[in-house]
Amino acid sequence: MAEDASEELLLAAAFVSDAQYNRNIPFKTSPEAVRLYYLYNHWIMRAATYFFIFLNLSLAVFEEPAVYPLPFLATSLVEVLCLLVFFGRLTHFAKITPRNVFWKDTKNICIVVAILLSLTDLAIYGALRIYNIKSIRWSRIARPIFLINFAESRQIRRAFRSIRNTLPEITYVFLLFMFSLLMFSLMALKLFGERNLQTAEGLPYFRNYLEIVFDLYVLVTTANSPDVMMPAFDFSSWYALFFIAFVIVNTYIFMSLFLAVVYNNYKKHLKNEIRKLAYMKHRKMIEAFNLLKEEEGAQPVVREARWKQLVKLVAPDISNSHRELLLRISDDEQKGFIDKKSFVQLADLLNIQVITLKIRSHPLGQWMPHVYKSAVSQFLRSMVRHRFDTLIIFAALTATILNTTLRSTTKYNSQQILDIVFILRVLRLIRIVDSIQRFRVIMNTLINIVPTMLTFGGLTLVVYCIFAIIGMELFHGKIEFFPANSNAPYALECGNPALKDSLFARGKYCKNNFNNFASSFIVLMELTVVNQWHVFANGFANVTAQPAKLYFIAFHIVMVIIIVNIFVSFILEAFFVEYSLEKSEVETAIEQKIQELGMGVQEEVLQDEQLLDNMESAEHNLEGEVGTKTQPRGLVFKIASKRYRTVDALLQRMFEAEIPPEDEGPSFEEILNLSPTAASPSHLTSERAV
Amino acid sequence: MAEDASEELLLAAAFVSDAQYNRNIPFKTSPEAVRLYYLYNHWIMRAATYFFIFLNLSLAVFEEPAVYPLPFLATSLVEVLCLLVFFGRLTHFAKITPRNVFWKDTKNICIVVAILLSLTDLAIYGALRIYNIKSIRWSRIARPIFLINFAESRQIRRAFRSIRNTLPEITYVFLLFMFSLLMFSLMALKLFGERNLQTAEGLPYFRNYLEIVFDLYVLVTTANSPDVMMPAFDFSSWYALFFIAFVIVNTYIFMSLFLAVVYNNYKKHLKNEIRKLAYMKHRKMIEAFNLLKEEEGAQPVVREARWKQLVKLVAPDISNSHRELLLRISDDEQKGFIDKKSFVQLADLLNIQVITLKIRSHPLGQWMPHVYKSAVSQFLRSMVRHRFDTLIIFAALTATILNTTLRSTTKYNSQQILDIVFILRVLRLIRIVDSIQRFRVIMNTLINIVPTMLTFGGLTLVVYCIFAIIGMELFHGKIEFFPANSNAPYALECGNPALKDSLFARGKYCKNNFNNFASSFIVLMELTVVNQWHVFANGFANVTAQPAKLYFIAFHIVMVIIIVNIFVSFILEAFFVEYSLEKSEVETAIEQKIQELGMGVQEEVLQDEQLLDNMESAEHNLEGEVGTKTQPRGLVFKIASKRYRTVDALLQRMFEAEIPPEDEGPSFEEILNLSPTAASPSHLTSERAV
Repeated sequence: MAEDASEELLLAAAFVSDAQYNRNIPFKTSPEAVRLYYLYNHWIMRAATYFFIFLNLSLAVFEEPAVYPLPFLATSLVEVLCLLVFFGRLTHFAKITPRNVFWKDTKNICIVVAILLSLTDLAIYGALRIYNIKSIRWSRIARPIFLINFAESRQIRRAFRSIRNTLPEITYVFLLFMFSLLMFSLMALKLFGERNLQTAEGLPYFRNYLEIVFDLYVLVTTANSPDVMMPAFDFSSWYALFFIAFVIVNTYIFMSLFLAVVYNNYKKHLKNEIRKLAYMKHRKMIEAFNLLKEEEGAQPVVREARWKQLVKLVAPDISNSHRELLLRISDDEQKGFIDKKSFVQLADLLNIQVITLKIRSHPLGQWMPHVYKSAVSQFLRSMVRHRFDTLIIFAALTATILNTTLRSTTKYNSQQILDIVFILRVLRLIRIVDSIQRFRVIMNTLINIVPTMLTFGGLTLVVYCIFAIIGMELFHGKIEFFPANSNAPYALECGNPALKDSLFARGKYCKNNFNNFASSFIVLMELTVVNQWHVFANGFANVTAQPAKLYFIAFHIVMVIIIVNIFVSFILEAFFVEYSLEKSEVETAIEQKIQELGMGVQEEVLQDEQLLDNMESAEHNLEGEVGTKTQPRGLVFKIASKRYRTVDALLQRMFEAEIPPEDEGPSFEEILNLSPTAASPSHLTSERAV
Repeated sequence: MAEDASEELLLAAAFVSDAQYNRNIPFKTSPEAVRLYYLYNHWIMRAATYFFIFLNLSLAVFEEPAVYPLPFLATSLVEVLCLLVFFGRLTHFAKITPRNVFWKDTKNICIVVAILLSLTDLAIYGALRIYNIKSIRWSRIARPIFLINFAESRQIRRAFRSIRNTLPEITYVFLLFMFSLLMFSLMALKLFGERNLQTAEGLPYFRNYLEIVFDLYVLVTTANSPDVMMPAFDFSSWYALFFIAFVIVNTYIFMSLFLAVVYNNYKKHLKNEIRKLAYMKHRKMIEAFNLLKEEEGAQPVVREARWKQLVKLVAPDISNSHRELLLRISDDEQKGFIDKKSFVQLADLLNIQVITLKIRSHPLGQWMPHVYKSAVSQFLRSMVRHRFDTLIIFAALTATILNTTLRSTTKYNSQQILDIVFILRVLRLIRIVDSIQRFRVIMNTLINIVPTMLTFGGLTLVVYCIFAIIGMELFHGKIEFFPANSNAPYALECGNPALKDSLFARGKYCKNNFNNFASSFIVLMELTVVNQWHVFANGFANVTAQPAKLYFIAFHIVMVIIIVNIFVSFILEAFFVEYSLEKSEVETAIEQKIQELGMGVQEEVLQDEQLLDNMESAEHNLEGEVGTKTQPRGLVFKIASKRYRTVDALLQRMFEAEIPPEDEGPSFEEILNLSPTAASPSHLTSERAV
C-alpha cells in the first residue's frame, strides 16, 4: 500500500510537472513507464538530444564542400553515431508511450523515415565513393527533420504549424499580387519595349517579358530602385508615374497586406494553441488531484503532508520557506488540506519565480566589524554588487594578459580585442537607460523577446539549412574568391569569365558564394536583408542558367514574405502585451498573499537602494537596510521581475485576457469521470495538435 | 411664427447635416449666420477653396526654378489672387462663428499669419528683384499651411495630430536606437579602423567615426547591404558576425519596434478621436431634436410632417420612396411622430446608401417589343450593362481615331497608347477575381483604403512640399542632366567634376536632382522607397558639403520611420476590420426593416443574375426578373455594397465595437439643459480638439 501510494505520488508529480512546463506527452501510467518517463525528461537526456541534433547539422561544415575538411570516414562515423542516438531516444519514447499512439504520430514516423533514408544514402554514397563515382548526398536535406520532430522542439513545431495555417490566405494574396505584377509587366512591355532604351550597363531595357517580370518583382522588394526606372525616366519624366503607381500598389499596399494576413493568422492561430495548452494544463492538474485526493467531509481534498511530498518531487530546488509560502497561498485558511480549486493553481504558482531575500547582516560584519568596514572589503562588496561591471573588468584583465602573451609569442596585435572589452564596459550605460521609467517598457519588450528569438533562430536554421544544401548542389565552385593580390586567371571576375562586367564582379561580391556551408549561410543572410539580392540572382544565373533565379525568388518568398513577417508579427504582439498588461492574476494573488503575511518588501526600498542595481535579479542581500522592519523569520519574498519568463509564459500572457475562463461547464465533469489511462487517447489527439 | 419655425427647421437641418458628415464647426445660431453657414458648406465653395489651395501649391512648378517657366508678374499675381481667396474664405468663416471662438482657434491664426507672411515676402522679393538682387522666397514653405488648416482638411489634420501624439514615444525608441547605433559604430571603429581596409571604390574603410555612424545608419535601412560588409568579410569571415548582429538588433528588432509604437499609438489615438466624433454627433442630433420637438402626452416627439421637411432639407436628393422607408424605420409603429431615440438615429440612417431597384420592364419593351428584342437593341442593352467594358472599348476607339489623326499630321506613333487601352481591357479579369469569395475580403480592403489613401496623399504632399522647397534652396543647379549625346563639359559627371567616379554618376542618376519642383518630388519619392538613398546623400554631399547628409537623414526619419509606418498601420487595421466585422448595427436594422416591409430583394437574385455584374453599383434595372414577386409599389430596396463608404465611416466602423454605448448617463442630462447658444462654447472645445 505504501509503495502504491509512492507510485501514485510519482505519477501525480509527473502530471504536475507536465502541467508546469506545458509538456503534452501521452505516457503510459504503469510504474515502470512513469520511471522511464522521468528519465526521458531529465535535463541531461534532453541536452544530449539537442547536442546530437546540432552535431548532426554541423556535419555540413566538415563534409565536402567543407569549411574545415575532415576525412569521409570521420564524418560518416559521427553521422552513424548521431543516427544511433536518435534511434535510441525514439526507442525510449516508444517505451513510455502506448504503441498505437506512437505509430499514429507523424513526428515519430518522420524520424524513423529520416533515419532510414540517411543510412541508405550514406551506404550508397560510401559504396560509390570506393569506385570513385561522385554522387550527391541528397539525404542531408532531411537533417533538419530531427530538429523539428523531436518532442523537445515544440516551439519550432508550433511556428511551422503557424506558417502552414497561414499558407492558404497568403496564397490568395500572392495570386492577386502576381496578377498585378503580370499586368504591370505587360504594360511596361507595351510602354517601353519598342523605344530602344538601354540600361546603365548598356544592356537592352525592358524588351523581354520574363525579364521585365523579374525586374519588376525586384522593384517590389525595392532592391533595384531607382536604377530600373532611370532609362525610362531619362527618356521622359512622365514615365516616372508608371513606376510610382507600381511602387504604391505593389510595394506599399501588397507588402503591407502580406504583413496583415500573416499577423492576423498568427494571432488567431496562437490564440487557439494557447487555449488548448491552458485546457490541457487544467486537465492534467485535475488528474493529479484525483490521484492524491482523500475525503474530508463530502469534499475531496489533498492533505498537507501529501501536498508537500508532491511539491518536493516536482520542484526539489525551491527552498523550504518558499514551499511554506506556496502552502499558505494554497491553503488559505490553514485547514490542513487543499481543495481542488487551489490545487489546480499549483502549476501556475510554481511557474512564478519568487525571490527570497535574506534579512541579516553579513556574518563578517557581526564578527569582525573592523575588517568588514575596511576599504578593501568595501571595494570587494561593491564589486559583488556590480556583478555586471566586475565581469567586464575581469574580462578586460584576462584580455590584457592574453594580449601580452600573444604579442610576445606571435606578431599578432590584439589591442582591438582589449578595446572591445572596454567598449562593453560602456554598455553599463544600458543600466542607466533602464532605470528611466519611459525606457522600461521598450527594454522589457526587448528582453522578453530574446528567448523567443531562439524559436525564430531554429526556424531560420531549418530554412537556411535546406536552402544552403540545395544552393551548394547548384552553385558549388562556380564562383570563387581570390585575395586582393592574386594572379589567378579572372581573379577580378571571381574566377568565372561569365561574370565579366557584371554588377556582381564590380561590387566585389566574389566571397559571397555557395562553396561551403558557412559561406552559403552568409549569402542567405544577405538575401534575407534583401538589398542587392537581384545582383546575386543575376550573378549566379550568369554562371549557371537563367532559371537559377527561381531559387532566389523562392528564398525571398519563404524567408522574407513569410518568416520575417511572422517575426515582425511576434514583435508587434509582444510589444502590445508588454504595453497593455501589467501583472497576471496569479502573480497578483501571490503578491497579495506575501503582503498579507507581512513578508513583503517594499518596491521602493529596492529601487532607492541602488539605481544601478536594477539589472541584477538574483538573490539580494539587503544587509540590514530592510532589517529595521523586524521580521519574525528574517525572510522576505519578492516576485522576480517579470522580465525573466519562459516563452510559453509570455505567449500565454499574450492571450490570457481573451481566453474564456477555462470552459468550466462540461470539461470538469468529463475529466472527473476519466481515469488516467482512459484519458490517454485524448492526450494523443491534443499531442498531435500541439 | 411660421418664419420662426422655418428658421428653426433650417438650424435643425444644419445640425443634422453636420452630424451626418461629422462636421464640427461652431456656428452662430442667428438666422443670418445659419444662412451664411449653408453657403459656407456649399460644395462649390468647398471645391473652389481646394482649387485655390492646389493652385497656390502648384505655383512652385511655374516659379523659378521652374518646370514650365512663367514671368514673375504672372505667378505673383496668381499668388495674390489665391491669398485673397483664402482671406475671403476666412472672413466668411469669421462671420458664421462667434468672435471669441474664432480667435482662440490656432487654425485661423495660422492662416492669417501665413497670408501676411506670404504677402510680406512677395513684396520684399519683388522690390529686391527690381534692383536685381536675388533673394530667397522663404515664405513658399508656408504654403502647405493652407492645405492643413482650412476646415475642409480635417482628415489631414487628424493624421498630423496622430503623428504629434506618437512623437514622444517614437522619441524614446529613437533614443535607444541611436544609443545602439553609436555603440555599434564605436565597436566597428575599434574592430576595423586600424586594419587599413578599402571599400570596393578604393576609399578608406571605417576610419572616421562620423562616417561609420552614417554607413551603419544606412545599413539599418539595408540600402548598402552587403557592400558595407564586404571589405571586412573579405579580410576575415568571422567579421560577418558583427554585421549579422547589427542587422538583427537594429534592422529587424528596432525597425519592428518603430512600427509597433506607431501602430499602438495610432490605434489608441484614433479610438479617442472616433469616440469624440460619436459623442459630438449624438449631441448635435439632440440639439436638432430639441429645436423641433413638440409634446405628445408627457413625451417630447417630432411630428411626421416636420420630420419630412427636415429630411427634404438635409438630403434633397433622395427619392420619395427612400424617404418613406426611412420614416417607416424611424416611426416603427406608424404613430405619426418620432421619439428622441429614433430621431437620433437619423444621421446614421442618412449615411447608409440604399439602392432603389425599379421593378418594371423597359417602356420600349412594353410599347415596341419587336424593336426591343432586336439584335441591335440587345447589343445596346448588354453594352449598358457592361458599362466598364464599354467605356474601355470606346476609349480604344477614340484612341484609334486620335492615333490615325496624329499619324497623318505628325510623325509620332502612338501605337503604344492603343496597346495600353487594350491592356486595360484585360483588367476585366479583376471582375472575375472579385467574384471569388476568397478574394473578396482582400479586394474589399483594397477598395476601402482608396479614399483614405487621399489623406495620406495629402500628408505626403505636405511633407514633400516642405522638403522639396528646402531641397531646391540647398541643391538647385548643383547637379544637371544632359541627354546621352551631349558635348557639355562633365556631361557624364552630371556637369559637376565633384561627382567624378562617384556611385551617383556611375549609376547615371543625373536626372535625379532638385532643379525644379517636379524633379524634387521624384527624388523624394525615390528616397521614400529607401533603396540607394545613401548614393543620393553622398552625391549631394559631394557637390555641397558633408552636413547635407542630414537633410537626407531627416527625410528618412520623417517619411519612412513615421509616415510610412502610419500608412502600414492603417492598412493593417483596415484589413483586420474588414476581416472581422461584417455589418454595422444600423445597417442590420435597416435591412431588417426592408425585409419586414416585404420590399427586400434576395441577394441571390442579384448575384445569380450576372456573375460579372458585381462591380456595378448604381441603380439596377431588374427588368422583370424579380417582377415575379409582385410588389405593391413596384419598388425594392437594397443596401449598397459596403464597399462605398466615406473615410470617417470606415474609421468609425474600426472602433465601433469597442466604443462604450455613448455614455448615456450624464451627457444626456447635460445636453437637455443646454440651449443651442449655450452649447457653443463646448462646440468650441471639441472643434479645437477634432
